[in-house]
Amino acid sequence: MSLGKIAVVGAGVIGLSIAWRALAAGWEAVVVDPAPCSGASWVAGGMLAPVTEAWPGEEPLLELGEASLRMWPEFAAELGDVGLRTEGTVVAAFDSADAEQLAILAAHLASIGRDVAQMSGPELRRIEPSLSTSVRSGLSVPGDLAVDNRKLLGVLRSKAAFVHESARAVRAGEVELADGSVVRADAVVIAAGAWSRNLHPRLNSLVRPVKGEILRLRPGRGAVPLTRTVRALVESRPMYLVPREDGEIVLGATQYEAGYDTEVTVKGVRDLLLDAERVVPGVTEFHLTESAAGVRASSPDNLPLIDWVEPGVIVATGHHRNGLLLAPITADAVVAMAGGEPVPEAVAAARLESR
Amino acid sequence: MSLGKIAVVGAGVIGLSIAWRALAAGWEAVVVDPAPCSGASWVAGGMLAPVTEAWPGEEPLLELGEASLRMWPEFAAELGDVGLRTEGTVVAAFDSADAEQLAILAAHLASIGRDVAQMSGPELRRIEPSLSTSVRSGLSVPGDLAVDNRKLLGVLRSKAAFVHESARAVRAGEVELADGSVVRADAVVIAAGAWSRNLHPRLNSLVRPVKGEILRLRPGRGAVPLTRTVRALVESRPMYLVPREDGEIVLGATQYEAGYDTEVTVKGVRDLLLDAERVVPGVTEFHLTESAAGVRASSPDNLPLIDWVEPGVIVATGHHRNGLLLAPITADAVVAMAGGEPVPEAVAAARLESR
Repeated sequence: MSLGKIAVVGAGVIGLSIAWRALAAGWEAVVVDPAPCSGASWVAGGMLAPVTEAWPGEEPLLELGEASLRMWPEFAAELGDVGLRTEGTVVAAFDSADAEQLAILAAHLASIGRDVAQMSGPELRRIEPSLSTSVRSGLSVPGDLAVDNRKLLGVLRSKAAFVHESARAVRAGEVELADGSVVRADAVVIAAGAWSRNLHPRLNSLVRPVKGEILRLRPGRGAVPLTRTVRALVESRPMYLVPREDGEIVLGATQYEAGYDTEVTVKGVRDLLLDAERVVPGVTEFHLTESAAGVRASSPDNLPLIDWVEPGVIVATGHHRNGLLLAPITADAVVAMAGGEPVPEAVAAARLESR
Repeated sequence: MSLGKIAVVGAGVIGLSIAWRALAAGWEAVVVDPAPCSGASWVAGGMLAPVTEAWPGEEPLLELGEASLRMWPEFAAELGDVGLRTEGTVVAAFDSADAEQLAILAAHLASIGRDVAQMSGPELRRIEPSLSTSVRSGLSVPGDLAVDNRKLLGVLRSKAAFVHESARAVRAGEVELADGSVVRADAVVIAAGAWSRNLHPRLNSLVRPVKGEILRLRPGRGAVPLTRTVRALVESRPMYLVPREDGEIVLGATQYEAGYDTEVTVKGVRDLLLDAERVVPGVTEFHLTESAAGVRASSPDNLPLIDWVEPGVIVATGHHRNGLLLAPITADAVVAMAGGEPVPEAVAAARLESR
């Protein structure tokens, strides 16, 4: 017996995960999106990295991320091959100021009981030989993983039913489409990333677009593949290289406020390539196969927004740099909320109350 | 009355120009290519620049280029809008070794009676204000032009009839296709660029592929468009920025021997972006819309090959960096040869004899 119908606006990783879990829980589910899988989730690198994303003062986000990361192996196993990589993450510091930043992060993580190994340059190169000899120090974080976001989206997409149209407003009981028609549903979920702010007045000041550019590289002749995710601070700019099973590397990501612009800039590509080369010199032997930009949905405190916005309407956005990581816990929380069940304690930090 | 049928192998700018001029002369013409307009001519920047390509010892190439450049205004006018730009070219020197190279070129051009203006940095910036203040000297060459190669190919393509199949051999009277069938013709022309070497044994040692990578940029907010073609030597690496009417800039080109590889390398993109930024700092405000690689058809002496390879079979390849420039004179020469008429004196340098 169906619990009723749920309509999800937005076919990124959050919206599709919600639809999939809702189906599994006994709902009828439909996803409203004019272009499924074309936004930030598609452009993303695929890191599942709560620890290396951590920062003093953001403990609730760390706990939420860790709770979701614990769900990932089962989430992935139920979906099939989504390219989950369990080799872990290393973080490299380029100059002494970068090393100081990493030491602050390591000390903070130790103070809250997280196990992070500080390593010298040679120690890091022993486990990831492609790192530059100018990397003097860093961290090893074996628990921070990665997923092939495009494989994942492909699998999730195959499990969903779609209305291929833009939503222009959301109310209890219905999604109003750009063509004036409506999709009726017992529960409505706003999971439209940075565009969520246009769908409900409550979200207008809580979600903003943060642009990110990313490059995809494939190994050329003589290129040495990476095994772990390599993150780095290069003159304070964060950079990551996420390897895929087939040798591809996703190199990201710039981060700046440019509205909904998704053009790739010369400046962004230049910075990514130079920073990557300084940390992993061998990237110059790779082929550049794609450059793309996406728009993250960011919130004032970097925490996602997972809550009722009004009776009948749930929001699940504001996942910023953590959409892939937080998909399992967000999906389960939204489905629990829609069904009137309690949500995990870690998700309380994502409530709208007092934000 | 038709002069007979001409079959041209290769739908780049050379092959398509030959087919178009052959039609105009009264031939029936067919172009054999599995993927018209997808090779070096499509990737190219579109410079029509015999003078800034000149080098001591290559006077026959300069004369051939100048003869073809004189034909360009009429060639373009007959085709319609092909984006011919007549604002001219400036060449900038980055460091003192680059300035010395340009001085050698300027002295050489003066010694053979060509009019080239040596300019200081401020003089260059007066006519092209986007040039970096670190450009200390250079040349102005108003006669070196540019064309929108993709507009040109589009127009030429619309005038041709095609057989969409690969050629695997060429003999007097026929082109043998990959599927085993043949296209019969009274005259056969090999204009398959770097692939020409596989079509006739005579060409095997005379044509080789030289890879080139190129980027296409579009102005972002606040970007200042160029008016002239800007060429530069940056630490001995030649670089060019060719502006289009709509503000697009084509940034090229790397040059190396990598067989028929057409992957875009991280190294190539990095060098192009950094060198362009050093000469025109404002390029960082442009969007990167395309990166591509092509394979030039190069000859041992940089001169093209325009001649009979055997009775009934003409070759027109080996145009290296000058395919767009040399298209008019090559097309007219080939059509004259096929019709038993004399070819312009400048084309004698492109004969196979003694090469």
